Amino acid sequence: MTTGNLGPAVAHEESEDWNDLDADEQLRRMRHSAAHILAEAVLEMFPEAKYAIGPPIDNGFYYDFELPRAITPDDLKVIERRMKKSVKRNVPIEGEWIPKAQAQEIFKDQPYKLELIADLEDDLVGHFTHAKFEDLCRGGHTDRTGQVGAFKLSHSAGAYWRGDERNTMLQRIYGFLFPTREELDAYVESREEAERRDHRRVGRELDLFSTHEEYGPGLVYWHPKGGRTRVEIENAWRDEHYKAGYEIVYTPHVGRSELWETSGHLDFYADGMYSPMDIDGNDYYLKPMNCPFHIQIYNNAKRSYRELPMRLAELGTVYRYERSGVLHGMMRVRGFTQDDAHIIATAEQVEDEIFTTLEFVLHLLRLYGFEEFEANLSTRPDKSVGDQADWDKAEQALQRALERANLEYVVDEGGGAFYGPKIDIKLKDMLGREWQTSTIQFDFNLPESFDMTYVGEDGADHRPFMVHRALLGSIERFFGILIEHYGGAFPLWLAPVQAVIIPIADRHLEYADHVMREMKQTGLRVEVDTSGERMGSMIRRAQLQKVPYMLVIGDREAEAEQVAVRDRSGDDLGAMPVFQVVDRLVDERDTKSYQPPV
Amino acid sequence: MTTGNLGPAVAHEESEDWNDLDADEQLRRMRHSAAHILAEAVLEMFPEAKYAIGPPIDNGFYYDFELPRAITPDDLKVIERRMKKSVKRNVPIEGEWIPKAQAQEIFKDQPYKLELIADLEDDLVGHFTHAKFEDLCRGGHTDRTGQVGAFKLSHSAGAYWRGDERNTMLQRIYGFLFPTREELDAYVESREEAERRDHRRVGRELDLFSTHEEYGPGLVYWHPKGGRTRVEIENAWRDEHYKAGYEIVYTPHVGRSELWETSGHLDFYADGMYSPMDIDGNDYYLKPMNCPFHIQIYNNAKRSYRELPMRLAELGTVYRYERSGVLHGMMRVRGFTQDDAHIIATAEQVEDEIFTTLEFVLHLLRLYGFEEFEANLSTRPDKSVGDQADWDKAEQALQRALERANLEYVVDEGGGAFYGPKIDIKLKDMLGREWQTSTIQFDFNLPESFDMTYVGEDGADHRPFMVHRALLGSIERFFGILIEHYGGAFPLWLAPVQAVIIPIADRHLEYADHVMREMKQTGLRVEVDTSGERMGSMIRRAQLQKVPYMLVIGDREAEAEQVAVRDRSGDDLGAMPVFQVVDRLVDERDTKSYQPPV
Repeated sequence: MTTGNLGPAVAHEESEDWNDLDADEQLRRMRHSAAHILAEAVLEMFPEAKYAIGPPIDNGFYYDFELPRAITPDDLKVIERRMKKSVKRNVPIEGEWIPKAQAQEIFKDQPYKLELIADLEDDLVGHFTHAKFEDLCRGGHTDRTGQVGAFKLSHSAGAYWRGDERNTMLQRIYGFLFPTREELDAYVESREEAERRDHRRVGRELDLFSTHEEYGPGLVYWHPKGGRTRVEIENAWRDEHYKAGYEIVYTPHVGRSELWETSGHLDFYADGMYSPMDIDGNDYYLKPMNCPFHIQIYNNAKRSYRELPMRLAELGTVYRYERSGVLHGMMRVRGFTQDDAHIIATAEQVEDEIFTTLEFVLHLLRLYGFEEFEANLSTRPDKSVGDQADWDKAEQALQRALERANLEYVVDEGGGAFYGPKIDIKLKDMLGREWQTSTIQFDFNLPESFDMTYVGEDGADHRPFMVHRALLGSIERFFGILIEHYGGAFPLWLAPVQAVIIPIADRHLEYADHVMREMKQTGLRVEVDTSGERMGSMIRRAQLQKVPYMLVIGDREAEAEQVAVRDRSGDDLGAMPVFQVVDRLVDERDTKSYQPPV
Repeated sequence: MTTGNLGPAVAHEESEDWNDLDADEQLRRMRHSAAHILAEAVLEMFPEAKYAIGPPIDNGFYYDFELPRAITPDDLKVIERRMKKSVKRNVPIEGEWIPKAQAQEIFKDQPYKLELIADLEDDLVGHFTHAKFEDLCRGGHTDRTGQVGAFKLSHSAGAYWRGDERNTMLQRIYGFLFPTREELDAYVESREEAERRDHRRVGRELDLFSTHEEYGPGLVYWHPKGGRTRVEIENAWRDEHYKAGYEIVYTPHVGRSELWETSGHLDFYADGMYSPMDIDGNDYYLKPMNCPFHIQIYNNAKRSYRELPMRLAELGTVYRYERSGVLHGMMRVRGFTQDDAHIIATAEQVEDEIFTTLEFVLHLLRLYGFEEFEANLSTRPDKSVGDQADWDKAEQALQRALERANLEYVVDEGGGAFYGPKIDIKLKDMLGREWQTSTIQFDFNLPESFDMTYVGEDGADHRPFMVHRALLGSIERFFGILIEHYGGAFPLWLAPVQAVIIPIADRHLEYADHVMREMKQTGLRVEVDTSGERMGSMIRRAQLQKVPYMLVIGDREAEAEQVAVRDRSGDDLGAMPVFQVVDRLVDERDTKSYQPPV
């Protein structure tokens, strides 16, 4: 047990030369030392504070305290100033191993530290100090306080002692820390941008969706505007899948226990499933996956090699248990719609199928403006089912497909599922963040469990290869990613409202209505702002709603049968006849092109 | 208790003059007498037979027997011949009331009759005879056996004594009976046609869908070909709804018990719902209806009169309990997708909304070739909620809409739901059968339960009117109706495969492939028959599969870059250049027109 969860401390003795450490280890140490400096500052400010643990984390550090009162944002500024003084003093950070008894004496007023000491098995415990500050710690620090780099306290939040909700709620103070001021600033900026683009916030502002805790957390309600975008995503998905030789099926959301027993889900996936419902004395389960249903469609007839590859796709809504604590907007939910498909193929077809699937997923993701991808190839784990020859063939097919598609990938040896190897694909969004969306997985389990066969050219029965694949992953999560990627300023084809017509005065309403009807005939999603407010307010509202185009109508426009066109970045595109605006918008829609707002 | 379930017998004494009876009563008596004649024939053939009950039914009659062996189709012919002899003999059918004891003596070897006698409360029981045949019967007969009209035994099936599966299984022999030979023939013909068009049979033959008893009866799996038609139905539905000013939403399939408590479903609809699932200690129910979810979307923000009418539509899959005995293919299922919408409107808007909804449903149904409709208007029942003034307004709105739409309707006084009055719409299919598909229902319950409000022009809160409506009803059932309506020979826009290209020899495969690719570019669903079979077989298969067009390619066509076009009724439309075929099919698709096969 350490104050910071510092695995590598033993490997990197404090005596090591700083310059011999790699950059990651240096940064970890800077963050860990900053946590000590944070605790030092808090103890100065609240001498009665009880301090608990304070590790380095991904973007900085935190420390947990029991304090006489709640920390305010103003407190954070004071604490930060005190920390900076400690850094300026640039005192050495020193550690030594001392007997438990001595540590218990030092921390006699610190109940959390005493609890940590009591839990330690060794008789010697780490004791680190700088200036007057003392901590219980296994080490992993900078040599002096002056070395900690650029930091900024971000916020405080409640945290249970040892993460257990039966324990005292402590106050956790978070800080960001990076080696340089530039890196810190860039991080803070991108974080603020991410917060502005947070899909929950944008979803609320643009009225795209909601969840309703009281009627079930993690269940998404798509509002009319979210629905319009979803319809576009799904239409494009269906069109592209039909073009790519898939067939679209629809299957039930529930199945009798026999189905889940045969599939094995009740054995290996029960934790992700909800409790059964009773129908006529039989147990029925809400589906966590679509596979067993698609297999029923395959098994519904005797199949011939002539029918393969068979590609069965469904926008299948599945329900899975997630702890309520991890639910997050549309990103992590309890019910979501997979863009699921199962490819059933002969051994000879597998490699080409994987390659075309890989090309297909990149094509589909590029429609949404994603350009950078990375892949993971996960191979056979120790515990697994299936013939080694089949695994080899499958892994080879995955690897060759990655190479043919010229996609960068990392091999995760032994990281596959027990039932087959897989490729996972991550995309990079506009903020440079990575999201895992797509997966292509072999399955050597279900074809056996459900005894799937086809009659080969030789007239004999063969077991087909089966591949699961989800390209967008989950429609809910993908929409969440899209919201954050575009910050709600969707490309025209996805925008819930594609243009708002803004009549300057009531006398322009009739012409506005006429323009709207004309535009709607081409399927464009157009509204008239009938609020009667000032033009500036109407334009501002449309901009806040991220509507791609604003079409302003005053006397001049009404007379000339034109509209004055503005885009959502505020650019004035001048007056145009209506047909020209229609052409422009229809073209932008049909080519799915994207004009990023400035 | 009677041998036939003959309610009106008391009113129509046997002594009444035959010509004073109305046609319905005459027909009932003809069918009842035929049941006696059937029993007479069976007892002649199997003297050891035990006979049970034999009532007239909708299309004829039946009689239940315990027999020494199973009845075969050949037996039916023999029995029918014996019946015809009895008819020819034209003996009188006579009845009298006799004491129970005497009846028990007469039927001492007939345990089913004895059981019926024991159950009678009166001491006198009806005893009917013709020739040597005797039956226990309350009456309702023709005067003589010669009066029974035209009949035909149809089939036999198992039936439990008194419909209780703990009792003996008897053999039930069915017959059709109509006043004239012409009417009987017409009925038999239409019934055979209905059987040929049975959606379960056609669904199997065209590989459209399946159900899987072992994994849950009443749950439909849409196969690739059924899926193609469903995608078309849903696409058209979405397009038309957007055009009609609806917004499309998506809501979860499960909700916590609190939702169903507030909505009242757990009180008044629990029998139709499945047992709850436990999630984190809370009860969740699979949704039997979409309404409470749509209301959450409405209630998610404070609403203004400016936002009304709000029309929220969803293709929402619901799950309802139905006894397994009543499940029937796609027509009656346990999980189905409602084309559900909720219209939320002010009092002033209600009448126009109902009228446009009515126009909309007729428009939508006409897309599928339905031309004849009837409506039922169901008004306030005794037990109901809501203000009388609101009910009056709602009923008036429904009635005026029916009149404005010029739709024939019947008023079902007091037949509305407890929560509001409604219109149900029935359509007539090509066989003249009626199907109830659409419903438009007011709801005065849920707006109260969920406290739905809007801010009126007066700045005060008002309760909106809410209307539920489903136009196709259930996508599953509607597809079942479509299959039977078209006998599987869908109009081009709905046909899973729109054209099959038939290369006469292998050397035409390349050109066939070229034609297919060219046609697919316009989104047409085209396949090449690569079976290598004889042309005749390929054409026959395409016809059996009800594919609208067959494009035959031989040397001449390949050379001239043409195809020889045949339609599914076997008409030879001659050779055409590919672009001309494409134009024709695209036009037929886009206009949703229908060429009935001869």
